[in-house]
Amino acid sequence: MATIKLTVEYEGTAYAGWQQQPNRPTVQGQLETAQFQISRQRIAIIGAGRTDAGVHAWEQVASFRTPHPLSPQKWAPALNRYLPRDIVILQSEQVPDDFHARYSARKKIYEYRISLHRNRPALDRNRVWHVHYPIDPARIREAIPWLTGTHDFTSFEGPRSGTTNRMCTISNLSVNEDGNLLIIRIEADRFLKQMVRTIIGTLIEVGRQRRDPSDLPTILEAKDRRAAGETAPPHGLYLLRVLY
Amino acid sequence: MATIKLTVEYEGTAYAGWQQQPNRPTVQGQLETAQFQISRQRIAIIGAGRTDAGVHAWEQVASFRTPHPLSPQKWAPALNRYLPRDIVILQSEQVPDDFHARYSARKKIYEYRISLHRNRPALDRNRVWHVHYPIDPARIREAIPWLTGTHDFTSFEGPRSGTTNRMCTISNLSVNEDGNLLIIRIEADRFLKQMVRTIIGTLIEVGRQRRDPSDLPTILEAKDRRAAGETAPPHGLYLLRVLY
Repeated sequence: MATIKLTVEYEGTAYAGWQQQPNRPTVQGQLETAQFQISRQRIAIIGAGRTDAGVHAWEQVASFRTPHPLSPQKWAPALNRYLPRDIVILQSEQVPDDFHARYSARKKIYEYRISLHRNRPALDRNRVWHVHYPIDPARIREAIPWLTGTHDFTSFEGPRSGTTNRMCTISNLSVNEDGNLLIIRIEADRFLKQMVRTIIGTLIEVGRQRRDPSDLPTILEAKDRRAAGETAPPHGLYLLRVLY
Repeated sequence: MATIKLTVEYEGTAYAGWQQQPNRPTVQGQLETAQFQISRQRIAIIGAGRTDAGVHAWEQVASFRTPHPLSPQKWAPALNRYLPRDIVILQSEQVPDDFHARYSARKKIYEYRISLHRNRPALDRNRVWHVHYPIDPARIREAIPWLTGTHDFTSFEGPRSGTTNRMCTISNLSVNEDGNLLIIRIEADRFLKQMVRTIIGTLIEVGRQRRDPSDLPTILEAKDRRAAGETAPPHGLYLLRVLY
């Protein structure tokens, strides 16, 4: 048996998210089907981040255990032959048997892209959130120190989650401007369901003067989803990298 | 009667190109249909560049003459309400009556994006040409001086063109690298059919050592399409800007 680590890029537009669901196209489902084409054995493929429907990945990480003799580096080209054009394996490698794509991850980095252009985007319509009201990035930057560090992020957790531990440590949160584009990166040891999207939705409300940067501690202390802002749409979100 | 100039962004993936064709979706067709929804009059909309199927535009320019009383700036939001998500009018403005999107254009700038990444792109699969053999950008740069200036570009012209004048002046040609991306920009007073794509295909053959930079004058002098390289695929090409 070998444990194989895959680095996966995908556009999430056509998928009901990462996680396998009956009768709906998912990224995990596509990978498991491709793997079956090669080994003729049904094997679960574990993802580091269970991205929502419409969320993209530049470098998602997945792992699986297989008795198949294919050499580790050959899994990438072999799987790519069976995968659709919007999913690609960038790399495949053998890792120690105790490696688990989700549980072994030390940190994950997400990026969220917001277009502040006057017009809705055509070319990037599935790749950025178009925010058509004025945003002050300086206000968003003022809110950052309140979110970094270790907190209970219950207020930023989406519905129907099975988690009991809501403590997360955000080790880095940055806001960059590139023309009409606002790019927010969040690095943390773990993320609750929809946590990035709720943080982004809340930060945008700060940026448009609907909330103050200093409201953040109160929102965290409330431990209530209703205290935070709207959930930003999935299509501006990218799983950028997973660190082990 | 007012003459209206439109600045148009679109993703060309879903279209059989700019130009109106019976029973096939085209960008011009979508614009003319949207215009009809507003004025209930069939009016031809002229584009500065007749982009091929799959070619994108950041700022295509189009123009039409209309007796409709809608104020010039309002055409953009009005048309956007009827246009599909992959086409957007960025701006509408009134211009003098002798303005013609194609004939009045002084220069057009095209950009071509090539991915040199080891793997095929997933997120950018319809937005870059993936070239999977080694390319030396320095060789491409050496070829540039042979193409800039005024030349007969017959050797770079696609099939079934109605043009008799094949003289074009390339005023700028640049090659930039951005990580694994090679970005080539070409500015000229006019372009023959498929001229950018044939130039790119030929430059890539130079970059991969199949031709020498100094072969370019011979290719131009041949005035024969068979002398130049392959036609690069449409999906890496963007109409960037039109200058008047």
